[in-house]
Amino acid sequence: MVNRNCRATLRLLTLINRQGHPHPPLSSSPSGHISHSYLILPFSIAFVFLTVLCFYSGTGIDACWKQLQRNNVHGEHKIVSFFSPLASSLKTRQWGVKIQSRCYGSASVLVQRNPKFSKLNDEDVRYFEGILGAKNVIQDDEKLITANTDWMRKYKGSSKLLLQPRTTDQVSEILKYCNFRCLAVVPQGGNTGLVGGSVPVFDEVVVSLSAMSKIISFDKVSGILVCEAGCILENIISFLDSEGFIMPLDLGAKGSCQIGGNVSTNAGGLRLLRYGSLHGNVLGIEAVLADGTVLDMLKTLRKDNTGYDLKHLFIGSEGSLGIVTKVSILTPPKLSSVNVAFLACKDYSSCQKLLQEARRKLGEILSAFEFLDSNAMNLVLNHLEGARNPLPTSLHNFYVLIETTGSDESSDKQKLEAFLLGSMENELISDGALAQDINQASSFWLLREGIPEALMRAGAVYKYDLSIPVEKMYNLVEEMRSRLGNDANVVGYGHLGDGNLHLNVSTPQYDDKVARSNTNELFGYEVLVFNLDE
Amino acid sequence: MVNRNCRATLRLLTLINRQGHPHPPLSSSPSGHISHSYLILPFSIAFVFLTVLCFYSGTGIDACWKQLQRNNVHGEHKIVSFFSPLASSLKTRQWGVKIQSRCYGSASVLVQRNPKFSKLNDEDVRYFEGILGAKNVIQDDEKLITANTDWMRKYKGSSKLLLQPRTTDQVSEILKYCNFRCLAVVPQGGNTGLVGGSVPVFDEVVVSLSAMSKIISFDKVSGILVCEAGCILENIISFLDSEGFIMPLDLGAKGSCQIGGNVSTNAGGLRLLRYGSLHGNVLGIEAVLADGTVLDMLKTLRKDNTGYDLKHLFIGSEGSLGIVTKVSILTPPKLSSVNVAFLACKDYSSCQKLLQEARRKLGEILSAFEFLDSNAMNLVLNHLEGARNPLPTSLHNFYVLIETTGSDESSDKQKLEAFLLGSMENELISDGALAQDINQASSFWLLREGIPEALMRAGAVYKYDLSIPVEKMYNLVEEMRSRLGNDANVVGYGHLGDGNLHLNVSTPQYDDKVARSNTNELFGYEVLVFNLDE
Repeated sequence: MVNRNCRATLRLLTLINRQGHPHPPLSSSPSGHISHSYLILPFSIAFVFLTVLCFYSGTGIDACWKQLQRNNVHGEHKIVSFFSPLASSLKTRQWGVKIQSRCYGSASVLVQRNPKFSKLNDEDVRYFEGILGAKNVIQDDEKLITANTDWMRKYKGSSKLLLQPRTTDQVSEILKYCNFRCLAVVPQGGNTGLVGGSVPVFDEVVVSLSAMSKIISFDKVSGILVCEAGCILENIISFLDSEGFIMPLDLGAKGSCQIGGNVSTNAGGLRLLRYGSLHGNVLGIEAVLADGTVLDMLKTLRKDNTGYDLKHLFIGSEGSLGIVTKVSILTPPKLSSVNVAFLACKDYSSCQKLLQEARRKLGEILSAFEFLDSNAMNLVLNHLEGARNPLPTSLHNFYVLIETTGSDESSDKQKLEAFLLGSMENELISDGALAQDINQASSFWLLREGIPEALMRAGAVYKYDLSIPVEKMYNLVEEMRSRLGNDANVVGYGHLGDGNLHLNVSTPQYDDKVARSNTNELFGYEVLVFNLDE
Repeated sequence: MVNRNCRATLRLLTLINRQGHPHPPLSSSPSGHISHSYLILPFSIAFVFLTVLCFYSGTGIDACWKQLQRNNVHGEHKIVSFFSPLASSLKTRQWGVKIQSRCYGSASVLVQRNPKFSKLNDEDVRYFEGILGAKNVIQDDEKLITANTDWMRKYKGSSKLLLQPRTTDQVSEILKYCNFRCLAVVPQGGNTGLVGGSVPVFDEVVVSLSAMSKIISFDKVSGILVCEAGCILENIISFLDSEGFIMPLDLGAKGSCQIGGNVSTNAGGLRLLRYGSLHGNVLGIEAVLADGTVLDMLKTLRKDNTGYDLKHLFIGSEGSLGIVTKVSILTPPKLSSVNVAFLACKDYSSCQKLLQEARRKLGEILSAFEFLDSNAMNLVLNHLEGARNPLPTSLHNFYVLIETTGSDESSDKQKLEAFLLGSMENELISDGALAQDINQASSFWLLREGIPEALMRAGAVYKYDLSIPVEKMYNLVEEMRSRLGNDANVVGYGHLGDGNLHLNVSTPQYDDKVARSNTNELFGYEVLVFNLDE
């Protein structure tokens, strides 16, 4: 399966203060109302706006945020869209199918390059070659195309330079110089994000963390792993597996996304229900600020109450405060028994009740509770090779995937079977199948994890990642569906256990009318929309 | 059991900037090196120094921290100590035994009241009466004695005013006025802290959160509780129990400590091993800054990536950034099966290996792994009424308490029994007992939870709360013991699963020589010492 949906986005702001002097972002301290506003960020556009404004307006995050709110509230995005020639050339090469794509570039009315930022010159390049060696200073067009384009090929920058530091000191040297020279920078992890956060908007210097991919230490007694930010999530998972541990984070893009990007975007993923958020699991980070200052917060203690816990500001701040270069994370021991069930529910209310029951009856072994509606199921069955409905008698309204992870095969299975039997008797589920082996478990997971890819194959897709109280979650899908009528296929799925809905609007082609409807509809809700980790 | 060991401390700094104008603490943004320095804070003295310097030096947290480091490194604390008449009068009244106590007051050489702070006058009192009503503005000596003294009666302030706001708006009005008038403030939760953080140092106005004790909402689908900061932890636990849920936080002081204090001190406690830290479980807070600004970060969504997650700065910042007034917290469903085993190990290495085995074999049901050494066991058996050794054949070197919590009584018990049998065969444990009912389970827990009380009854006690990599944890106890010889009884116990050691030095009387030895010894280690939640 392709790696499709990580939010491995990092972005560093070389802020210019009102006097025009560069200063490190931390000194323009974030004001309180940034974090306590409940905001609705229409997918993809919002983050680009936010970042770009911070980069180029010279007025700081605060003003940018207000601007963003104003724009959003009135639904006045004026993105001039165009199909990218790059996207056209890519679209058949990698997937072998015609995939809709659309680029939001620098032609937006609202987003203008801030002329205070310098333009790259030959001397800059020579300076970087002096720090990194010529082979890690990349100007090659082919490689720059990849760095300038996001996975969905919706966003395209025009960076002329990709840097690949191998040490924290090199990252520091790069940023110090860029800060001095007023060169805008965009850090890049696995570049698997879906909101364009990891690609340049204009001609920013791309700082890739890919070459910083060492596992530094692992303590088997405490389960604490320390590694560089460029470690690919799947490599960490494999390493831990060989040591008898697991990552508390898992998501579909694991084959490409990097831990630094995961931390910077506070990725949730499939194990959030069981192991909680990265705020709970990340014990420390090392980060480099825009002026090159290295913040060593790389603690490796489970409990540490000394001073303000600044690392949390970096978790989920999308690289806007600095580049994460190292991470220490608490990992739980691997448990031997994994069971997966795929169930059908007649309505959304039953899905909710099933979740409550699962929390109570499966308790400590419940490790995933995912749901998809019949539209999502149809899409996967029609567009994804190898997808097969394990409950084929009829198409049900809702499907739920439940995974348990525990230390005792027989008692876990017994517990799950008893739960399923009880749920059947209570009419919470109308049908269900329990995977008998790892292959069946994988085929169940494919139905859930394959939705984003199926959506891409089906046509154009507008993606929204929303946090809503569980009981209200599906209303939004229904209202969006009734609003758009036959214009679009509205699909709802996601991490039900976390109150995290993936609302996707699928259309044959991209259509501004649909995009406007979506935005207007979402703004009627007090919901939160994030970057995606589907 | 008395409520003895919560870190329910809140402290608000009305900072004065270099120009002498009051400004809200957030604008003097914390610098990076506050949080990435590994510091060793000798128990109790350090926190008072830190807080007082911030309050009264007018040079901000940063300078204070450096000063603290300098002082600590050279071991030059010059506290002029005295026995408090108050302590003498209290010491037999509540406990009926003679308990050693010592007050560190304002007579310290290093700690001087900053004259920039105003003195309270009648007009101030009238103003507060106008906001709160006369009955919530307390000047009564008897009540002030309690508010001016910590639970261990080591610290004593001389506040003349205790305020009891009932709403966030009232807290805001109080702080706004104090900021305007340059009156120093100390917020107070349950006042169960052991490091003097919740009592005044000089004549600060005490703002008690006790009257803000309402549970605001509870969502049974998501398990998300919203409550006021003054809710007593045990009341929350009882409320959740009746709803079929549990608090992810539990500690000995639950009968008095308040959730606002727990959050402000990032209390760990007995369930950290299973449910993680408050950084992972607290979803939102409402806090009032020193200038009266109310920060509404009271989110109730499990996943929320909008903006910088500022609430984390308030978790564990000891009230230095603001007063926490409301909290929302994610609570897991209650599980029906709880098992407790009390085990003996011949050496510390066996305790460590047992922890690794327990993590792997008990996995998802392991909910506590506590240890105590033979000195701690002896103390409890000799000084605590009702304490009884369940493994009486001989005194072992180490004892471990293991608790499991799961959803299936029979399979959990079976799993625990198999684990114990295996551990016996591998000679990791030399003896053990499995509680057969709730009474036996309580009596096992008493042996661990009763240690702080036993220590108080045994004489004077120097308390240190340390985070150390598990494998090195006990070396410190042994070195301290060999250093102090017959001068003191060095006791080690704590949350082994979290790498959190409670090192206590028990002496017949308080003795400056012992205190100095302790400090010098601790400074040889790269360890972290916190406020206590034993």
